[in-house]
Amino acid sequence: MTSADWIGLLAGTLTTAAFVPQVIKIWRTKHAGDLSTYMFVIFTVGVALWLWFGVVTASLPVIVANSVTLVLSVLILAMKFHYRK
Amino acid sequence: MTSADWIGLLAGTLTTAAFVPQVIKIWRTKHAGDLSTYMFVIFTVGVALWLWFGVVTASLPVIVANSVTLVLSVLILAMKFHYRK
Repeated sequence: MTSADWIGLLAGTLTTAAFVPQVIKIWRTKHAGDLSTYMFVIFTVGVALWLWFGVVTASLPVIVANSVTLVLSVLILAMKFHYRK
Repeated sequence: MTSADWIGLLAGTLTTAAFVPQVIKIWRTKHAGDLSTYMFVIFTVGVALWLWFGVVTASLPVIVANSVTLVLSVLILAMKFHYRK
């Protein structure tokens, strides 16, 4: 692991972990009306492309971080759909 | 530009552009109560670290994408604070 890999893993841990409190908040409040559906649809497609970028450049932190972020982003979209009015 | 750079730039464009509809939605509704403050604080710190990762690895798409995402993420936090109840 290079120092760049460590910075990337820390960065990826934070930008991935960030979505956990949002998942918890939606689950608790059963409400996600203020979240933009466009945001999470575009973001999910973008994260899938970052994953591809990580594979092509053989960058471990990019692959790991975006795999988990993809799952959380899809989960938020599913919860937003589930709890829609 | 390698093909990896192009994939990264497309990915970065999407994960960055994704925050624009969220900014517009908050600005229109003057409401961001369902957004998790923890999410955007943690995410902002993470994006700053991705920017650092991009500089260290001299990765143009990572630098460009995360610079703009950082601005949008801070803007969303500021709007959430401004429109709090």
